[in-house]
Amino acid sequence: MTAPIALQPIGYVISPVTDQTDEDWGAVVSRIELLPPYRAGLAGLGQFSHVIVVTFLHEARFDFDRHLQRRPRGLASMPEVGIFAQRAKDRPNSLGVTAVSITAVSADSVTVLGLDAIHGTPVLDLKPYYPAYDLVPEASTPEWVDRLMKGYFH
Amino acid sequence: MTAPIALQPIGYVISPVTDQTDEDWGAVVSRIELLPPYRAGLAGLGQFSHVIVVTFLHEARFDFDRHLQRRPRGLASMPEVGIFAQRAKDRPNSLGVTAVSITAVSADSVTVLGLDAIHGTPVLDLKPYYPAYDLVPEASTPEWVDRLMKGYFH
Repeated sequence: MTAPIALQPIGYVISPVTDQTDEDWGAVVSRIELLPPYRAGLAGLGQFSHVIVVTFLHEARFDFDRHLQRRPRGLASMPEVGIFAQRAKDRPNSLGVTAVSITAVSADSVTVLGLDAIHGTPVLDLKPYYPAYDLVPEASTPEWVDRLMKGYFH
Repeated sequence: MTAPIALQPIGYVISPVTDQTDEDWGAVVSRIELLPPYRAGLAGLGQFSHVIVVTFLHEARFDFDRHLQRRPRGLASMPEVGIFAQRAKDRPNSLGVTAVSITAVSADSVTVLGLDAIHGTPVLDLKPYYPAYDLVPEASTPEWVDRLMKGYFH
């Protein structure tokens, strides 16, 4: 193995949600508060409608035997698939990537709607949603994904 | 500051592109070869049309003075905006997030179309493209984004 890649949080999630859940994230309003050195990096973000939040899922624990292949959420109604064919939080690198709607940008933070990260989650990056990068209207998934995600955001 | 977050590559990009460019990534065919312990995690990915590739942009260097706010690609025709309002590679944590089309999945790798990462780039995660997470048809951006991204993928 090569030397590990070392990253530093740019800020933290301030959220009313303190325990992991798999439902109803769509209505959650949370605030991402940036550490002082990074705050000037928010300039101009308010002109975008959406931002991709890259988080470090600090409470996730990846275990090869249990998580390299598993049924999503452990549900018998789901097929057993590899970790790279699902969005489960217990992954080799505990990174979350979620596109959320921006409701406000202030001097030190951005308020967003629908971020599925609990209070205190370290944030590693904020990327404005660029349709050229992120929008794939023709994307298709296996049928189980629709069943799995029903109720997750709303 | 807290202790750094330590991540390990799950694999590497095999690409015909060896130098950073800002044009024509859309036609680039590259292969993400996973390290042996992670290969079983690819099971089921072939049922998805698209995957989000999270990379560590190993040649990027973030400098607060030069990069916290800048004009995208240094172009006079672009406004000066914060790093979190643009997708420039020189960011506080050098993470790339790009949604690409899957052309093949084998036992040890996934072949993709349109990945904007040079040969040898460490890959940190593969996430199947879930419309519930990633598809935001109504996303809006400032007008300069369309001008900037013209020609980047095609």
